[in-house]
Amino acid sequence: MIIILKSDTTEEQIGALTDHIASLEMQAHVSRGTFRTIIGVIGDEASIDSDQIKSFTGVSDVVRVLPPYKLASLEAHPQPSVVEVGKTKIGGGHLAMVAGPCSIESEERMDSIAAAVKASGANILRGGAYKPRTSPYSFQGMGVEGLKILRAVGDKYDIPVVTEITDARNLDVICEYADMLQVGARNMQNFVLLTEVGKANKPVILKRGMSATVQDLLMSAEYILAHGNQNVVLCERGIKGFDSVTRNLYDVAAVAALKTLTHLPVIVDPSHATGRPDLIPACAYAGVAAGADGVHIEVHDCPEKALSDGPQALLPEQFDETFKQLVKVADVFGKTFG
Amino acid sequence: MIIILKSDTTEEQIGALTDHIASLEMQAHVSRGTFRTIIGVIGDEASIDSDQIKSFTGVSDVVRVLPPYKLASLEAHPQPSVVEVGKTKIGGGHLAMVAGPCSIESEERMDSIAAAVKASGANILRGGAYKPRTSPYSFQGMGVEGLKILRAVGDKYDIPVVTEITDARNLDVICEYADMLQVGARNMQNFVLLTEVGKANKPVILKRGMSATVQDLLMSAEYILAHGNQNVVLCERGIKGFDSVTRNLYDVAAVAALKTLTHLPVIVDPSHATGRPDLIPACAYAGVAAGADGVHIEVHDCPEKALSDGPQALLPEQFDETFKQLVKVADVFGKTFG
Amino acid sequence: MIIILKSDTTEEQIGALTDHIASLEMQAHVSRGTFRTIIGVIGDEASIDSDQIKSFTGVSDVVRVLPPYKLASLEAHPQPSVVEVGKTKIGGGHLAMVAGPCSIESEERMDSIAAAVKASGANILRGGAYKPRTSPYSFQGMGVEGLKILRAVGDKYDIPVVTEITDARNLDVICEYADMLQVGARNMQNFVLLTEVGKANKPVILKRGMSATVQDLLMSAEYILAHGNQNVVLCERGIKGFDSVTRNLYDVAAVAALKTLTHLPVIVDPSHATGRPDLIPACAYAGVAAGADGVHIEVHDCPEKALSDGPQALLPEQFDETFKQLVKVADVFGKTFG
Amino acid sequence: MIIILKSDTTEEQIGALTDHIASLEMQAHVSRGTFRTIIGVIGDEASIDSDQIKSFTGVSDVVRVLPPYKLASLEAHPQPSVVEVGKTKIGGGHLAMVAGPCSIESEERMDSIAAAVKASGANILRGGAYKPRTSPYSFQGMGVEGLKILRAVGDKYDIPVVTEITDARNLDVICEYADMLQVGARNMQNFVLLTEVGKANKPVILKRGMSATVQDLLMSAEYILAHGNQNVVLCERGIKGFDSVTRNLYDVAAVAALKTLTHLPVIVDPSHATGRPDLIPACAYAGVAAGADGVHIEVHDCPEKALSDGPQALLPEQFDETFKQLVKVADVFGKTFG
Repeated sequence: MIIILKSDTTEEQIGALTDHIASLEMQAHVSRGTFRTIIGVIGDEASIDSDQIKSFTGVSDVVRVLPPYKLASLEAHPQPSVVEVGKTKIGGGHLAMVAGPCSIESEERMDSIAAAVKASGANILRGGAYKPRTSPYSFQGMGVEGLKILRAVGDKYDIPVVTEITDARNLDVICEYADMLQVGARNMQNFVLLTEVGKANKPVILKRGMSATVQDLLMSAEYILAHGNQNVVLCERGIKGFDSVTRNLYDVAAVAALKTLTHLPVIVDPSHATGRPDLIPACAYAGVAAGADGVHIEVHDCPEKALSDGPQALLPEQFDETFKQLVKVADVFGKTFG
Repeated sequence: MIIILKSDTTEEQIGALTDHIASLEMQAHVSRGTFRTIIGVIGDEASIDSDQIKSFTGVSDVVRVLPPYKLASLEAHPQPSVVEVGKTKIGGGHLAMVAGPCSIESEERMDSIAAAVKASGANILRGGAYKPRTSPYSFQGMGVEGLKILRAVGDKYDIPVVTEITDARNLDVICEYADMLQVGARNMQNFVLLTEVGKANKPVILKRGMSATVQDLLMSAEYILAHGNQNVVLCERGIKGFDSVTRNLYDVAAVAALKTLTHLPVIVDPSHATGRPDLIPACAYAGVAAGADGVHIEVHDCPEKALSDGPQALLPEQFDETFKQLVKVADVFGKTFG
Repeated sequence: MIIILKSDTTEEQIGALTDHIASLEMQAHVSRGTFRTIIGVIGDEASIDSDQIKSFTGVSDVVRVLPPYKLASLEAHPQPSVVEVGKTKIGGGHLAMVAGPCSIESEERMDSIAAAVKASGANILRGGAYKPRTSPYSFQGMGVEGLKILRAVGDKYDIPVVTEITDARNLDVICEYADMLQVGARNMQNFVLLTEVGKANKPVILKRGMSATVQDLLMSAEYILAHGNQNVVLCERGIKGFDSVTRNLYDVAAVAALKTLTHLPVIVDPSHATGRPDLIPACAYAGVAAGADGVHIEVHDCPEKALSDGPQALLPEQFDETFKQLVKVADVFGKTFG
Repeated sequence: MIIILKSDTTEEQIGALTDHIASLEMQAHVSRGTFRTIIGVIGDEASIDSDQIKSFTGVSDVVRVLPPYKLASLEAHPQPSVVEVGKTKIGGGHLAMVAGPCSIESEERMDSIAAAVKASGANILRGGAYKPRTSPYSFQGMGVEGLKILRAVGDKYDIPVVTEITDARNLDVICEYADMLQVGARNMQNFVLLTEVGKANKPVILKRGMSATVQDLLMSAEYILAHGNQNVVLCERGIKGFDSVTRNLYDVAAVAALKTLTHLPVIVDPSHATGRPDLIPACAYAGVAAGADGVHIEVHDCPEKALSDGPQALLPEQFDETFKQLVKVADVFGKTFG
């Protein structure tokens, strides 16, 4: 961390700062230039709160040299991490294809969708049992009954299953039935939930919040990593934008940017990013071309009967066609689903 | 709700839609125009998922006539609600002045800040015991010890106290010590937490999320209201913006817009909105001038020793001066603190 | 400017940088810290392109110590500028009340609106003769005929007039008829137009672009100032936001932020910022409370016949009531219109 | 267009609306439902200003059935347009590879860069002679001298050339030297410039403004088309975002969305979108995978000496590698550069 002082900073103010830095068990190197004094801080930079430093009188600017996350950084782990979910690998050239309905609605529906996506080549089955809905009057998910259906169908088709966790109190029951957890965009900064998920022994998909920067996303991943769970897969699913032509703003450059900062796998979710089935295929291809380690697509065989988010699902036959093309795009980059 | 069909929609598709509407116990009025067929839907519109309607083949657009929230709407409650927190009233011409440190750090510090803000005229004391921090390595709050300090200091200075809840599992202990709950911006769509807070018998400040629309905020309020808690105060605290000149983007027009949609009181938080003490006074005045029912300002007597968010706090003497001016602005609009 | 180098930067790379800085006739002070080397650059910082510095191999970060604008800065001119438009003063405690229709539509309409706003207390009359319309099929303004009407009506009611310039080729004719020029939001970075307006001998309202930062706005003002025209009034008129509840996002904190950076007067335009007549009054009060040096409001006596932007105008009687309240808000801050 | 009236709208108000619609030479079909009256408007919808309709008392909402642009729409021209620039075709399976430096700096530099990009496979050479710079103190371009260099180098390497136009007064001289015009993001709503470019007999790249919606972009294209120039290529180059990890926010879904609305070719510019050479390749691949009809990349053989935008250029060898991979991605979709 480099602290740039104002031109009129006094020796007393500099002393207050260096005392504070010493109290944090770090070293301060004061460099008195001809027009500005600069303090270089050496030590565990991630544990300093740059806001606090900015509160000292006389500080003009604070520039981080190292990122505020440690375990998630490429410095800490220069090789790409490979996260395993059952037999499916994510990262390091292995691509995930996560597919399934938004909500688990019934065993029949889940079974038919699972059969279809597995046949196409999906390697992780998704389905929501606890749904974070913007309206208290909307369907809130089947709960444990849904988890049981998901488990049974996953076993039947031999495909690992992922489901969303919205409440720390459900952690045990979800871990009992699911192979992978998902933390949704609206809970990306629910630090209580991140802490609990960090203690679980299950891989996690962490979705980027709608107003989260890439650094915010990595800080949330850091919560999970710091509590012991190393199997985190990041997911770009669209951020808040000003154009209603798509539901969210698909930030595919964030995938490429993340690859320069972290070893964690990154997947994309063009279903939530666009909210438009007609744009999902193009955005899925774009995600893999940008370097994503997998794709998450909602699939439903009767969108108009879906209990949630029908308009952002592909039909099984559309999914099948999209996946075939995705495999070809992946091949250009020497990557494979499986 | 008005459903606009595509020009080539078939009678069979129209039938599927009207059957679906009937199954929701609502009435469909089909109006066949010369170039477009339109279906008017009569009934409890808030309980329909417009996304689901959009999933039907043949639907071009869905226009809501009524808002998706009910209890929060001005239609449901045309007079402004007045929320009471101890002796303090918020709404209907009564203004709240919520002040205090970001975090509770020690009894001594809390005492001195409380003495100062009470003397200036604040009518609610704030202090965080459970802190949602972006870094797992940052100070996470004093927990129950902090709550006890807050209670003791509030009692000593005879001022009601508000504190943030971040975990549904802490609801009972927080309700034991605090007069008012706060749901932070990052938890605005933590529907599990909203549901629990909706069952509590305490007034709540609900802060707007950084990517939340005004309607999203009202839907989150609806969760609390629908679960039985009618004492909700909304808070504009800045949304995500592209200009780093301020920490967030202070959306003062949202205050005025909310007043056209809801009976719930609305306060503003220029501390979080700007992250700059030098801008807090101007933005506080602007909030009251725009029609806010109160202001939330962080105050700290030693920002450089603050364990969180030091750079966005006013010093007690700055707060005192700001409050004096705020009283004059309020007076122009016939409103009073107290 | 402070250049922070990467930890592995070579002496040769440092030499390339210091040579480059010397070639710009500035001085480089190299400070070799224990973990990072830093170069302080002394000289006319506004003339350095920080992007170019970032392109040098070995550069980690570039931190400006001085802003990239000079003439617009508070350093260059610590007292607030007062811009005069006929008898009307803007800045330094003097508030502008700019009012009138979006477009000049006919002499009769312009006359009746001018009579009304002048009677209420407006001190600058607005009206557009050249309209930047998003559709090529929309009314594009009356051109010179409109300018003549505006001049005649301004003279009749003894009120200075402002009109928008959209084409550098119209500069002479507009200067012949108007007392003040306006550069619209969509032309805020039309540097050709800014350069020409900078050569004119007329005060200018420069509106903030929809995606412009506060610094971008000041850089555009710098264009006008650098070409010789010192009479620039900045205008916050709403930036692009994600919530369609208002047309744009009214950034009232930017007014307060500008006051910490520049001596130029700053006015607000709640008409364009909100696009909703019902929110204009509240946002006008908020602007003055935040420290604005004036307000710009569209007024039309028959919005449904307006040839452009009818939905964002106040009726004359609404304007009258709003202005009366504005005067009271201004009085709290010791400011006056007139 | 469908006009939804408020529940308490009077017959008189309905009459005022239908009279107005008749005066526009369109037909109004009034449909009195049991709870709302709706007016269907038949005629040339693009010529109606929906804002004006909203200004009528009694109007609740206005829903467009047809887009406000006509010539740019897929309805008007269901087959993809192919724009020809010299021998290079853009659209309908033909991909453009536009490459070159940000600014033309000297004949030597232009020659060496042109030689390199042509050898790699670029089919259009770019170079700026008139530069829209945010600072009045930055290099503003070589002007006519630059145009002459561009022409000479383009002729030498037998590659068509494109350059930016920033001032309508330069149209003739630019058309004399260049094969294609470019309207930059900051001028996307400079309607004066669009109108003049619409009268030119040269193909045009129209870049999306930083706060422009997809519809705004199409409306700006409509200006050019409506004035007679049918050879418009749209360009997504990043919009304003909140995360400084990239310079702008690359909206690759907009490419896919545009393809559902317009026949015009769409290219992407990952140089400006990201401002980071390390992300340009990934974002270029993503653009083609999403369906773009070409890519625009800045290339410079000595970025640290570039007079503008050095940090967003690829070196010739990086460009060569990127282009080789782009060809493979294009091949997956059956498209070719050439």
